[in-house]
Amino acid sequence: MPQKLTIVIVGGVAGGASAATRARRMNESAEIILLEKDEHVSFANCGLPYYIGGEIAERQKLLVATADLLRTRFQIDVRANQECKKIDRAANQLSVRDHLKQEDYDLAYDKLILSPGAAPLAPPMENADAPGVFTLRNLADADKIREHAIKTSARKAVVVGAGFIGLEMAEQFHRLELDVALAELQTQVLPPLDPEMSYPLEQALRDRDIQLFLGDGIASVMTDERGNASGVKLQSGEAAIGDLVVLGLGVRPNVQLAKAAGLEIGATGGIAVNRFSQTSDPDIYAVGDAAEYTYGPTGQQMRVPLAGPANRAGRLAGEHAATDGSAEMPEVQGTAIVRVFEQAAGITGLSMKMARKLGYDPLSVTIAANHHAGYFPGAKQLALKLVFEKESGKILGAQCTGVAGVDKRIDVIATAMQLGATVRQLAGVDLCYAPPFGSAKDPVHMAAFSACNYLDGIDAFLESDADLEGRQVVDVRTEKEVSSKPLAGAEGTLPIPLDELRQRLGELDPAKPTVVSCGVGVRAHAAARILRQNGFSDVQNLSGGALVRQWAVAKRTAE
Amino acid sequence: MPQKLTIVIVGGVAGGASAATRARRMNESAEIILLEKDEHVSFANCGLPYYIGGEIAERQKLLVATADLLRTRFQIDVRANQECKKIDRAANQLSVRDHLKQEDYDLAYDKLILSPGAAPLAPPMENADAPGVFTLRNLADADKIREHAIKTSARKAVVVGAGFIGLEMAEQFHRLELDVALAELQTQVLPPLDPEMSYPLEQALRDRDIQLFLGDGIASVMTDERGNASGVKLQSGEAAIGDLVVLGLGVRPNVQLAKAAGLEIGATGGIAVNRFSQTSDPDIYAVGDAAEYTYGPTGQQMRVPLAGPANRAGRLAGEHAATDGSAEMPEVQGTAIVRVFEQAAGITGLSMKMARKLGYDPLSVTIAANHHAGYFPGAKQLALKLVFEKESGKILGAQCTGVAGVDKRIDVIATAMQLGATVRQLAGVDLCYAPPFGSAKDPVHMAAFSACNYLDGIDAFLESDADLEGRQVVDVRTEKEVSSKPLAGAEGTLPIPLDELRQRLGELDPAKPTVVSCGVGVRAHAAARILRQNGFSDVQNLSGGALVRQWAVAKRTAE
Ligand SMILES: Cc1cc2nc3c(=O)[nH]c(=O)nc-3n(C[C@H](O)[C@H](O)[C@H](O)COP(=O)(O)OP(=O)(O)OC[C@H]3O[C@@H](n4cnc5c(N)ncnc54)[C@H](O)[C@@H]3O)c2cc1C
Ligand SMILES: Cc1cc2nc3c(=O)[nH]c(=O)nc-3n(C[C@H](O)[C@H](O)[C@H](O)COP(=O)(O)OP(=O)(O)OC[C@H]3O[C@@H](n4cnc5c(N)ncnc54)[C@H](O)[C@@H]3O)c2cc1C
Ligand SMILES: CC(C)(COP(=O)(O)OP(=O)(O)OC[C@H]1O[C@@H](n2cnc3c(N)ncnc32)[C@H](O)[C@@H]1OP(=O)(O)O)[C@@H](O)C(=O)NCCC(=O)NCCS
Ligand SMILES: CC(C)(COP(=O)(O)OP(=O)(O)OC[C@H]1O[C@@H](n2cnc3c(N)ncnc32)[C@H](O)[C@@H]1OP(=O)(O)O)[C@@H](O)C(=O)NCCC(=O)NCCS
Repeated sequence: MPQKLTIVIVGGVAGGASAATRARRMNESAEIILLEKDEHVSFANCGLPYYIGGEIAERQKLLVATADLLRTRFQIDVRANQECKKIDRAANQLSVRDHLKQEDYDLAYDKLILSPGAAPLAPPMENADAPGVFTLRNLADADKIREHAIKTSARKAVVVGAGFIGLEMAEQFHRLELDVALAELQTQVLPPLDPEMSYPLEQALRDRDIQLFLGDGIASVMTDERGNASGVKLQSGEAAIGDLVVLGLGVRPNVQLAKAAGLEIGATGGIAVNRFSQTSDPDIYAVGDAAEYTYGPTGQQMRVPLAGPANRAGRLAGEHAATDGSAEMPEVQGTAIVRVFEQAAGITGLSMKMARKLGYDPLSVTIAANHHAGYFPGAKQLALKLVFEKESGKILGAQCTGVAGVDKRIDVIATAMQLGATVRQLAGVDLCYAPPFGSAKDPVHMAAFSACNYLDGIDAFLESDADLEGRQVVDVRTEKEVSSKPLAGAEGTLPIPLDELRQRLGELDPAKPTVVSCGVGVRAHAAARILRQNGFSDVQNLSGGALVRQWAVAKRTAE
Repeated sequence: MPQKLTIVIVGGVAGGASAATRARRMNESAEIILLEKDEHVSFANCGLPYYIGGEIAERQKLLVATADLLRTRFQIDVRANQECKKIDRAANQLSVRDHLKQEDYDLAYDKLILSPGAAPLAPPMENADAPGVFTLRNLADADKIREHAIKTSARKAVVVGAGFIGLEMAEQFHRLELDVALAELQTQVLPPLDPEMSYPLEQALRDRDIQLFLGDGIASVMTDERGNASGVKLQSGEAAIGDLVVLGLGVRPNVQLAKAAGLEIGATGGIAVNRFSQTSDPDIYAVGDAAEYTYGPTGQQMRVPLAGPANRAGRLAGEHAATDGSAEMPEVQGTAIVRVFEQAAGITGLSMKMARKLGYDPLSVTIAANHHAGYFPGAKQLALKLVFEKESGKILGAQCTGVAGVDKRIDVIATAMQLGATVRQLAGVDLCYAPPFGSAKDPVHMAAFSACNYLDGIDAFLESDADLEGRQVVDVRTEKEVSSKPLAGAEGTLPIPLDELRQRLGELDPAKPTVVSCGVGVRAHAAARILRQNGFSDVQNLSGGALVRQWAVAKRTAE
C-alpha cells in the first residue's frame, strides 16, 4: 500500500476551504490538513460589512462551514490558530506556529496549497494604530468595528478608500445612523469604473449626506486628547472628522511565505502559477488573493482579489493536488459588483481608461435603457457601457449602473467574454423576455447593436466626457426637454427636435464636425443617420446622451 | 438618379415595425410602406395579459411607437387597416385591401418583408364562437376580454392551454378576482419544460385555488340558455365552468399569403428563409412568427414564435432590404420566461424530453441553490436543470424555476449556448458576486460543476423521476429531515446521515446499484464520492435531491 498522500493547505477560507473539500471528495484516503492562523475557517468575508451594519443580523450566518463540519463531514484536520511560518521545500516540510499552545512544530507535506489571501493596505503614517482605526479582513476585525460603532458613542465614521469594501462600509455605517465621511485618492468613487459610470454611486452617497472627499488621499490619522482617533488629515490639508476610521485602501497579497521559499513571484506581485495553479514548485499550488490568474481581456497574468476566482481555483487546485490532474483554471474577467444603497454598479473586464493604459485602441458605447419592458410597471433605467477592440470587435469589458438588472447584464457580457465573443456575437444572444423580466431588445442588445454600428461606420460614438468646443452640437430632444435639462458642458448647442431635423437641415453646416445628442442616444442615432445621408461628413453620437454627459461633466469639473 | 427603392412590409408590429425603422435608418431615400391589417401598429403584444389584468394600468403604454411617430420620425408610410391579400411575384406587386375605404388597390414593391405573425389556434368545435369565448393576439382582443371580464358579471374564467400566454392569463384573471380554471391537454403546465420543473408553477396556481385540469383537452364550449359561453367541456367529460373562456392553445403561422405566392414553406410549417431572412424569392423576406429560424441546439430550421427573435430578425431584414446587405440572423435558442405569481420559470434550448425525442443521447443535472449568498437576507432557492450532450459536453438547454434570479441564470446559459459552449466552459464563467447579487459559486457554476462531474465519472446523476425499485436508496439527510419530509416515491430507503456514512458503510451492500439522495443533491454528492471510493461500483446521485424528487413524483402520479 502506497504511503498516504498528505495535502497541507495554508489558509482556511475562500480558496483554502474550497481546496480542502474538493480534495477530500476526490481522494478519501489523503490526509488533508488545513492551517488557519486565525480563529475561524470558512467564513463569509464578503458578508462582513453587512454584519457590521446589522443587515446580516446573526453572526452565526457568516460561518459558512464550521471547523466541526469540515472535520466530521470531510475528515479534514482543521488546525485553527496555527500559522505556517516557513516552507522548507527541500525537506517538503513546513514550520507551523500553534498560537494557542504558543509552540512551533514541523509538518510534512506531499502537496502544499497556499491560499493565504491578502492583507489590507495600511500605509505607515502618524497615529495609524490609534484606537478607533480599523481595517477589515476577518471576523475579528468586523467584531471590533461593530463593537466600536455600536457600543461606543461613535457618531461619525470616516471611511478611507472608496473601492468595493469602502463603499459597502459607507453604506452600512449610514445604516447604523452614523454620519459618514468617505475619502478617496482618486477623483471618483469605485476607481475600477470609468469616471462617469461611477457618478450614480456618488449621487447615491451624496443623497444620504455622506461627505465625499475625492481626489484626496489620507495623510495621517488625527487623535483626540486621549489618543483616540478623531478623524483623518487628508493630503490637501482638509480634515475628515470622525471617531471611527476604517481604512479600505486595497490589499497586499500575502506572498511572504512563498517569497521566502524561493517561489516565483509574478509581475503583478502575486505568486506566479500555471493553469493548474502550480507555482514554480509543482508540488506547491497557490490560489486566491495571494496568487495570479490569467486575465481574460489581456491574456496576461494578474492578481484578481475576488471570491469567485478564489473559490474556483481552490476547488481545482484541491483536485489537482489530490489526484494529480484537473481541468485548467479558466481565464478570469475580473467581474465584480457592488451595491451602494439603491444603486448597483458592476464591471467585467477592462474599463476604457484601463484599456487605453494597456495600449489598446479601444472603442466604447454607452447606452441607457430600461431594465425590463418600459410599458410594464417598475421599469428602471440602467446605463451600460461596452468597451471593445476596434480591429476585431472583441469585447474587452463592460460597466453597468442602475437600481435593477445590473448583475444580469454584467453576467451575460462576462459570459460572452469568457467565450471570446465579439460585439457582433453579443448582438445575437437570445435572452429571455417577458415584460416583468426584460425587453425584446435587451440593453445588452442595444449596446451590442450600437457597437456594431460603430464598427460598421453606421454611427460613431463620441465619449461622453469629450470636449465639444469647436463642434456643431445638435440637440435633437424636444424644446421642453432641452430647456429643462440643457446638455451639460456644451455651449451654443443647436436645438433641433429630431422630428423637425429633415426640414431644418439648412440650419446646419454639413462640412462641420457635428455631434448629435438627445436623452440617452437613441434619437441621436436616428438623427445621425439622417445627417450622414444628407452630406454631413463627420457626425458623432454623444454616447449615452444628456444623461451620461451630465455624469461625465460632473466628474470632469470635479477633477 | 436611380429609381427610388420601394420596400413594402406586411405586418406592422414586432418584426414589421422593427424592419421599417432599421430600413429607414439605413436608407433615407427608400420608400417604406408598412401595411397592417388591423388598427394598431407597433403595440406591445406581450403586455396584453397585464393590461387585461390591470397590472399595466394605461392602455396608452401598450402603444410602443404610434403610427404618427413612425410617420414623422421615420417617414414610414404607415397604412393601418390595410391588408395584403395577394403577392404577385411576377409583377412585383401586391394586392391590398383597404378595410376602411372598403376597396382594393395594387401596390408595387422592390423588396417585400413579410412579418404577418401568427394566429391563435382555435380548433373547430361546438360553440367555438359563442359570446364569451376569446383568443388573444392583439389590442382589440385584449379590449374585448377586459371589457367582458370587468364590465359583465363574469365571476369565473376558464383558460384553455397552460402555455406562456395561458399562464399569464390565469394569473391576471386571478388578479381581477375572478375564479379561474385552467385546462391543459398535456399533463403539466408550461409543456416546454420537463414535467418536474413545471411543478412549482403548478403549486403557485393551486395556492391561489386555481382549478387545474391537466391532461385534459377541450372538447367543446358549453353555453347557457342565452347562447353565451358557460364553460368548456373537456375530453374526459369533465366540465370547467366559467362565464368567460380564453383559448391559449398556441399559434398557427400566417403563411397563407406566402404559400399562395409559391414561396417555400419549411418543414415546421413556417416560411423557409436563409440566414438573411430571404425566402425562396430573394426579393421577399420573412421574419417573426410566420417564419423559421436556425435553432441553435439542433442547427435545424424551426419556428420560434417569440418577440426577441422577431425584433432582431426584423431589424436585420429591414437593413438587408434597404442596403442589400446585413449581418446574418444568428441562431436562436428559444429562450423564454414566464411569471406565475411569485414564481418564474425560464427555459433556453432543449428540455430533456425534447432532446430525447430528437434522438440525442442527453444527460442532465438539476441543482437547487440560493439566488444570492445564503447568509445574506432574502436568499431564495431556485432550481436549475442543465441538459447537455454526453459525448461533447455541449450545452443543449437549461430550465430554471424560482422566485428570484431565474432570468439571470437562463440568460447566462443562453449566452453560453449562443457561443457553442460546453458545460466545461460554463464551469469557468466569471460571474459577478457580492452578497446581495450572487454567490462565489453561482447556481450556474454548481450546475456546470455537477455536469462536469457527471461527464468525468466523478458522480452520476439519476433523473429525479426515476423508478427506484430494486435499488439501494441511501438518504443521507439528518433523521429529522428524513422523518419530516420522507423521500417521495421511494420505499425502504436507508437513512444514514452523511456525517455517519463512513462509520456505517457496513450497513450497505457495495455490489448493489445504489442511489444516494439528500435535500437538493449537495450532501448526496459528498456521499456518492465516499461510496465510490469504498468499493461501491454503481452509485448514482438523485438529481435535485428530495426537493425535485417531490416535484417529479407529484407529476408522475398525476399522469
Ligand atoms: C470585507 C470584505 C468584503 C469582500 N467582499 C467581496 C465581494 O463582495 N465579492 C468578492 O468577490 N470578493 C469580496 N471580497 C474578497 C474575497 O473575500 C477574497 O477575494 C477571498 O476571500 C480570497 O480568498 P483567499 O482564500 O485568497 O483569502 P482569504 O479568504 O482571506 O483566506 C486566507 C486565509 O489565510 C489565512 N492565512 C494567511 N496566512 C496564513 C499562514 N501563514 N498560515 C495559516 N493561515 C494563514 C488568513 O488568516 C485567512 O483566513 C471581500 C473581502 C473582504 C475582506
Ligand atoms: C398575449 C401575448 C403575449 C406574448 N408574450 C410574449 C412574451 O412575453 N415574450 C415573447 O418573447 N413573446 C411573447 N409573445 C409573442 C410575440 O408577441 C410574437 O412572437 C411577436 O409579436 C411576433 O412578431 P411578428 O412580427 O411575427 O408578429 P406580430 O407582432 O403579431 O405582428 C404581425 C402583424 O401582422 C398583421 N398582419 C397579418 N397578416 C397581414 C396581412 N396580410 N396584411 C397586413 N397585415 C397583416 C397582423 O395583424 C399583426 O398585427 C406574446 C404574444 C401574445 C399574443
Ligand atoms: C463552503 C466551502 C467550505 C466549500 O465547500 P464545498 O463543499 O466545496 O462547497 P459547496 O457546499 O458549495 O458544494 C459544492 C459542491 O457540491 C456540488 N453540488 C452543488 N449542488 C449540487 C447538487 N444539487 N447536486 C450535486 N452536487 C451539487 C458541486 O458540484 C460541488 O462539488 P464538487 O466541487 O465536487 O464539484 C468554501 O467555499 C468556503 O469556505 N466558503 C466560504 C468562504 C468564502 O468563500 N469566502 C468568500 C466569499 S464570502
Ligand atoms: C419599437 C419598434 C418600432 C422599433 O423601433 P426602433 O427605433 O428600431 O427601436 P428602438 O427605439 O428600440 O431603438 C433601437 C435603435 O436604437 C439604437 N440604440 C439604442 N440605444 C442607443 C443609444 N443609447 N445610443 C445610440 N443608439 C442606441 C439601437 O442600436 C437601434 O438602432 P439600430 O437598429 O439602427 O442599430 C419595434 O420594435 C416595435 O414595434 N416594437 C413593439 C412591438 C413588439 O416588439 N412586440 C413584441 C414585444 S411586446
